[in-house]
Amino acid sequence: MSAVPGAIDHFHAVIPAGGAGTRLWPVSRSAAPKFLSDLTGSGRTLLQETVDRLAPLVDDRFLVVTGRAHRDAVAEQTRLPDAAILAEPSARDSMAAIGLAAAVLERLDPDAVMGSFAADHVIAEPAVFRDTVRTAVEVAREDWLVTIGIEPTFPSSAFGYVHLGDPLAGHAGAFRVRSFVEKPSPVVAEGYLASGEYRWNAGMFVVRPRVLLDLLAASDPDFAAALRALAGDLDRLEEVWPELPRIALDHAVAEPAADAGRVATVPASFGWDDVGDFDSLAALLGAGDDRAVPVVLGDPALVRDVHSTGLVVPGSGRLVAVVGLDDVVVVDTPDALLVTTRAHAQDVKEVVADLKQSGRADLT
Amino acid sequence: MSAVPGAIDHFHAVIPAGGAGTRLWPVSRSAAPKFLSDLTGSGRTLLQETVDRLAPLVDDRFLVVTGRAHRDAVAEQTRLPDAAILAEPSARDSMAAIGLAAAVLERLDPDAVMGSFAADHVIAEPAVFRDTVRTAVEVAREDWLVTIGIEPTFPSSAFGYVHLGDPLAGHAGAFRVRSFVEKPSPVVAEGYLASGEYRWNAGMFVVRPRVLLDLLAASDPDFAAALRALAGDLDRLEEVWPELPRIALDHAVAEPAADAGRVATVPASFGWDDVGDFDSLAALLGAGDDRAVPVVLGDPALVRDVHSTGLVVPGSGRLVAVVGLDDVVVVDTPDALLVTTRAHAQDVKEVVADLKQSGRADLT
Repeated sequence: MSAVPGAIDHFHAVIPAGGAGTRLWPVSRSAAPKFLSDLTGSGRTLLQETVDRLAPLVDDRFLVVTGRAHRDAVAEQTRLPDAAILAEPSARDSMAAIGLAAAVLERLDPDAVMGSFAADHVIAEPAVFRDTVRTAVEVAREDWLVTIGIEPTFPSSAFGYVHLGDPLAGHAGAFRVRSFVEKPSPVVAEGYLASGEYRWNAGMFVVRPRVLLDLLAASDPDFAAALRALAGDLDRLEEVWPELPRIALDHAVAEPAADAGRVATVPASFGWDDVGDFDSLAALLGAGDDRAVPVVLGDPALVRDVHSTGLVVPGSGRLVAVVGLDDVVVVDTPDALLVTTRAHAQDVKEVVADLKQSGRADLT
Repeated sequence: MSAVPGAIDHFHAVIPAGGAGTRLWPVSRSAAPKFLSDLTGSGRTLLQETVDRLAPLVDDRFLVVTGRAHRDAVAEQTRLPDAAILAEPSARDSMAAIGLAAAVLERLDPDAVMGSFAADHVIAEPAVFRDTVRTAVEVAREDWLVTIGIEPTFPSSAFGYVHLGDPLAGHAGAFRVRSFVEKPSPVVAEGYLASGEYRWNAGMFVVRPRVLLDLLAASDPDFAAALRALAGDLDRLEEVWPELPRIALDHAVAEPAADAGRVATVPASFGWDDVGDFDSLAALLGAGDDRAVPVVLGDPALVRDVHSTGLVVPGSGRLVAVVGLDDVVVVDTPDALLVTTRAHAQDVKEVVADLKQSGRADLT
């Protein structure tokens, strides 16, 4: 039985904590990636908020999968015990990371249901999120691979989509999934939005570890076997890890499983954002909502604006003055400064690439 | 006789070194104004360049008039002796500053001709400048108030103009001045440019000190008398200075003298800029001349740009990345950062006013 009232028996949270977040440079760095940052000004990092959001559901049943370089920071921020943090020797994409967690949980708890939730997403209504997860766990206990499908609020071409099928008998609020769809063109995305049959694929999966690994075994039996063997002998991680396939869970498991009629979804309408760049961060913080001044992530006393809108991050203690710029993005840190616009937020990754090529990888 | 070959006998350079340059914040501050800054990246400050430019004409005959707060910095930058620096107890506009210098020189050298040249202007062709001044001195010896009229290169509404009259007999290249004109509207400025009869009033005057003070005496005898008395007893500066009228030399002397037919001009076409704001600084440094990248004032290795133009001043040692902004102005200093556009460069003074009102005068 769980110690936290309302926690779900045998439910484990898996948190893949990876990704450089290069489009959020210079806030996000390889040494201090997005999930370790307080990107919303809440006083908690995205990783901490992820743990906070899940703790009422799982009590202390967490498994964070992160890069070796971030192991200590993850431990410090989450205060999780060593056994709750799996450190990858190198980045090998989501199937290896989440699959290893599944294999560990499969051995630990034969009745386990796992939920995988990225460490660097923002969710506006945690109570609605948790209700959705409860439903997803019930469905997952019947051996479905369950994804949470976020109701689209605009025709995004930056996210993948889930195509809903028929309602799932016996589970109010759950649907079969016809297919996963890769990031569509803006025109196609508008059609998705109008049809009402599509949800954003937020990469949140709820599934029995055994089911996940069996689904993987159906397409790549060696991969699944390697993960299961590794879970029984984690001392071999260093040796085995570099040989595992580098593939996303969506491609390795979710898409073929959907084709096989094994995937269900629980649609949800809580506010969700993957905070992919400074444009989405600005929107998340309220820029553009009839505001005639920039939003400030940090101390507003450090910002002066004249006829400007957008996002200002005064992160070095220095005063930042912005004059006559609409939708500007100014990110001030102690060793690097970024000036761009919301419309060019995606191009920030070019700066990071340039810095790496020009001998300033120390800043990335 | 002068020690420097080519120096003009009895010719003295007066350099009013004042003005906060608030539109050039945060490079220019009240504690470190424009004239003390190396705004062009030449390795010399504007004041030092002014002295360098004039030394071949005057040898060591300099008189710098500056605020008391800047006396030490002026001495250090120019290495002029104490007697060559007049420190104003407070700012009282140009008539008091230049008039006091005239009164001091009138006592020092009855045959003196003085040339007054601002400490914070940029001149592209110093040899052409010096030839122009030589002509102006010859005219001034005949008791004219001589101004140097810069050939306009565009219909500026930010400068005053000089309206040319007939050529001056006996002085090739010199003309009578019909009138001074205050900053015109853009439409009027276009007419001035088309007529060919107007020159920019760059505030450069060449005149015998006696003539300048006598012209002042014609409109304000008490003011002229006070300045002459003060020159004989500089110990009374503290006491007398606050009671002197606060008026520009143009209004007190130049405009009425032109009406009285006492002003001549030597038109010139050397490159001249008063570097009034970051837009003119950007132009001066070559921004917009078919450049697809921003101009950098400072170390170019500190700047990364993606599809951007304008001006970047990396003044804190930090890396500055600019992405997707045209005609942007980014000025990075250790304690304050400015982000604006060339079109909004004039509005920077609003930031300075705001800082003063909101308890951050330490940054202005």
